[in-house]
Amino acid sequence: MNKLNLKNGRNMSMLMDFYELTMSNGYFLDGMGDTTAYFDMFFRKIPEDGGYAIMAGLEQVIEYIEGLKFDEDDIEYLRGLNTFDERFLNYLQNFKFTGSVYAIPEGTLIFPGEPILTVKAPVKEAQLLETMILLTINHQSLIATKTSRIVRAADGRPVMEFGSRRAQGPDGAMFGARASYIGGAAATAATIVGEEFGMPVAGTMAHSWVQFYDDEYTAFKKYSEMYPDNSVLLVDTYSVLNSGVPNAIRVAKEVLEPMGKRLKGIRLDSGDIAYLTRKARKMLDDAGLTDCKIVVSNSLDEHIITSILQQGAQIDSFGVGERLITSKSEPVFGGVYKLAAVENDEGQIIPKIKISENVEKITNPGFKKVYRFFDKDTHKALGDVITMADEVINDKEPYTIFDPVYTWKKKTLTNYYVMELQQEIFRDGKLVYNSPTLEETRNYTKLQLDNLWDEVKRFENPHTYYIDLSKKLWNVKNELITKLKGEK
Amino acid sequence: MNKLNLKNGRNMSMLMDFYELTMSNGYFLDGMGDTTAYFDMFFRKIPEDGGYAIMAGLEQVIEYIEGLKFDEDDIEYLRGLNTFDERFLNYLQNFKFTGSVYAIPEGTLIFPGEPILTVKAPVKEAQLLETMILLTINHQSLIATKTSRIVRAADGRPVMEFGSRRAQGPDGAMFGARASYIGGAAATAATIVGEEFGMPVAGTMAHSWVQFYDDEYTAFKKYSEMYPDNSVLLVDTYSVLNSGVPNAIRVAKEVLEPMGKRLKGIRLDSGDIAYLTRKARKMLDDAGLTDCKIVVSNSLDEHIITSILQQGAQIDSFGVGERLITSKSEPVFGGVYKLAAVENDEGQIIPKIKISENVEKITNPGFKKVYRFFDKDTHKALGDVITMADEVINDKEPYTIFDPVYTWKKKTLTNYYVMELQQEIFRDGKLVYNSPTLEETRNYTKLQLDNLWDEVKRFENPHTYYIDLSKKLWNVKNELITKLKGEK
Repeated sequence: MNKLNLKNGRNMSMLMDFYELTMSNGYFLDGMGDTTAYFDMFFRKIPEDGGYAIMAGLEQVIEYIEGLKFDEDDIEYLRGLNTFDERFLNYLQNFKFTGSVYAIPEGTLIFPGEPILTVKAPVKEAQLLETMILLTINHQSLIATKTSRIVRAADGRPVMEFGSRRAQGPDGAMFGARASYIGGAAATAATIVGEEFGMPVAGTMAHSWVQFYDDEYTAFKKYSEMYPDNSVLLVDTYSVLNSGVPNAIRVAKEVLEPMGKRLKGIRLDSGDIAYLTRKARKMLDDAGLTDCKIVVSNSLDEHIITSILQQGAQIDSFGVGERLITSKSEPVFGGVYKLAAVENDEGQIIPKIKISENVEKITNPGFKKVYRFFDKDTHKALGDVITMADEVINDKEPYTIFDPVYTWKKKTLTNYYVMELQQEIFRDGKLVYNSPTLEETRNYTKLQLDNLWDEVKRFENPHTYYIDLSKKLWNVKNELITKLKGEK
Repeated sequence: MNKLNLKNGRNMSMLMDFYELTMSNGYFLDGMGDTTAYFDMFFRKIPEDGGYAIMAGLEQVIEYIEGLKFDEDDIEYLRGLNTFDERFLNYLQNFKFTGSVYAIPEGTLIFPGEPILTVKAPVKEAQLLETMILLTINHQSLIATKTSRIVRAADGRPVMEFGSRRAQGPDGAMFGARASYIGGAAATAATIVGEEFGMPVAGTMAHSWVQFYDDEYTAFKKYSEMYPDNSVLLVDTYSVLNSGVPNAIRVAKEVLEPMGKRLKGIRLDSGDIAYLTRKARKMLDDAGLTDCKIVVSNSLDEHIITSILQQGAQIDSFGVGERLITSKSEPVFGGVYKLAAVENDEGQIIPKIKISENVEKITNPGFKKVYRFFDKDTHKALGDVITMADEVINDKEPYTIFDPVYTWKKKTLTNYYVMELQQEIFRDGKLVYNSPTLEETRNYTKLQLDNLWDEVKRFENPHTYYIDLSKKLWNVKNELITKLKGEK
């Protein structure tokens, strides 16, 4: 099955910003195309002022890079634009990625400023990867992060992803559902995601089923006869309390119980959820249907779920649609891809920086990696330090972290151990990484959330997780800023 | 070229909500699967409280329906779920759409409550189409509508779609760019959209180009030598006014003018756009570069564009990214697909309604179409009337429209002509519609916007365009409500 496989199934090579091609052509013609460049993907701000984000989409980036090639039609189209040199077009026609990629695995908690993916490659290649790397990881990290918030609000109740119809294009639905599984969703309505990624699929019935039959009771009866083990009845087509719930109870008694079956659930998709679910719960309980679950699904997100649960809503699981699959309240994950270094003729790595008028847009220069510090006793994450790629932190010795802006804010860690977050994905063009299964990634996310302090996880004003720079990186950065600002 | 073609390129059949399959299986087993059903797609609210929306995505819906089939893997997967009858799986394996589809063409202005697409088909087929119809039209209509707002704010200046890297998956980028063209964007950075849909592609340079070289002047010089006819220089890598603009001017004088070329433009991607563009314009003008264009591109949308233009920003064109490609301020177009009627054994059309606790969720019953009324003298659109499919409006006679809620609000139109909006797309499974080119659709949108009063087009509190029901439809609807509400 490869409908969604970007290596074998679909060639996305031409989904790149046009300037990637003009720049690559430029480096090529300038004789600089083979210069080794280091590009970092990082993001500046966690969506919705949350305390953490979740890395997702790496598997699709890998497929994309493996499948990257330009066919005859592509070259013909580019030639027609009268912009590219024939030698460059010839190079593209035989394109093969020869560089290295380092990345933080999917499902890892990630924080602003960290290099979540680094490409080390001839600049003419590295430039071409920008658009799809950003697009893929921005999208899936956004949805995984949003889902994690919603799942937290649901407080142990399963969250089902029901958003395909409101997704931004087929991929928005399919890769979004994949990311939602990493973020903790229990199931999806998107059948293809079950088929392709093994995510559990779920669904109940639509209003059309209830409307199609002459009356609600008949519609419920037919459905329960057909699916006696999995009968979840949609009770809000006409009136939840006057007709939907009473008809569901009648079907439970008259149709299912004689078959030795129980009514599995009812679903509400409109109205005052807090009020209606309390009333419905009582009606079901009074009828002896205490095991009948209540599913709700009307424009939910983490805030509405928190609110209706606080109001005493009686809910067993949630179907969450548009606000999850588009991350409606903040539908953009702002990852960027910036040049961090180039190698000179002697193979020395020369750090590069982007200054910008906006201070928060200043980049971290050099070839880097990230260490995560954990408390030895509680195993809680203490903070991250971005270091140069060749730095080694010896966790047998105390380590002093400091705030990169207010450098007098210091803290010396002693009782800790560290984990390097980057993995080598491609080495000189060869894939050297085995992607975990989606299930493994999902479990890995859950584990890490358990190791994160609750204060960082809350929705309102979460505690800011430490993301510091090593002394070496801090020095390189400040020297570059001083040099460039001094030049003016 | 069929990378994006959903008929030949990709099979999206399994991208359907799981309940479409269980319901279809249910109708099938109940012996009701061949009952002719009428489903309407409509939406309830224009995004961002705007005055109009733009229909988009129909061409992809057509491709999807033409390509709909289930392969061996799909059937095997479904079989493994132990939910479906073998006879139904056998039916799916030989699936072919046999119904009819009516729709409002792409690029048409559309309004809440109108059936923008109607499927008349055996219910077992019509049900299966729901997810992809909604997903496709919701997504593209959202982006076309958002782009139209941004293009209006730009007030004649070209808007380029630069959002791929922040789109929600590859399709979000590709079909989003397509929709942006319908909505009035002038070009896209997504190369594949140029290749596949013929949309003009555009791009300048990234910060990486400037950082890559030892200094900004060298970077600009190299680029201008390579692209002397199309040199747009990104001036904010270090400092716009202290270094970027002066270096651009120096390149214009020292590199381009000796070649007989002019500097085409500069681009700003950060900082205080209103202030910086005014300063930059003056510096360029003082250097005799009055023909050098200023392009800006930092987190723009219709509101920011309106604001910076009011502040006297000097801008010739806009590159708009994440806020366009995700419709950030409202990333969901809420189209739904609801059962409107079924045929009985005698072939009579029996209207169906959904009541709901939320009044605005009550549907319009029956097989319907939409008439648009235009003033004979000004050619401005006066309003729309939703009628039964068999109603004929004779524009030689006066026609009284009335508000469907406050029915005493009436208006008799005399000096008008009407246009029926629905087109027949499929007839008994056969495609009978020729999709216009994307360019034609774009021009059609523009024409219609010219025929819409400015009061309906404004961003703040636009005048509400009339969307009324014919007397016949109003009667059918109210009889059904009375009957169902009376039954409780």
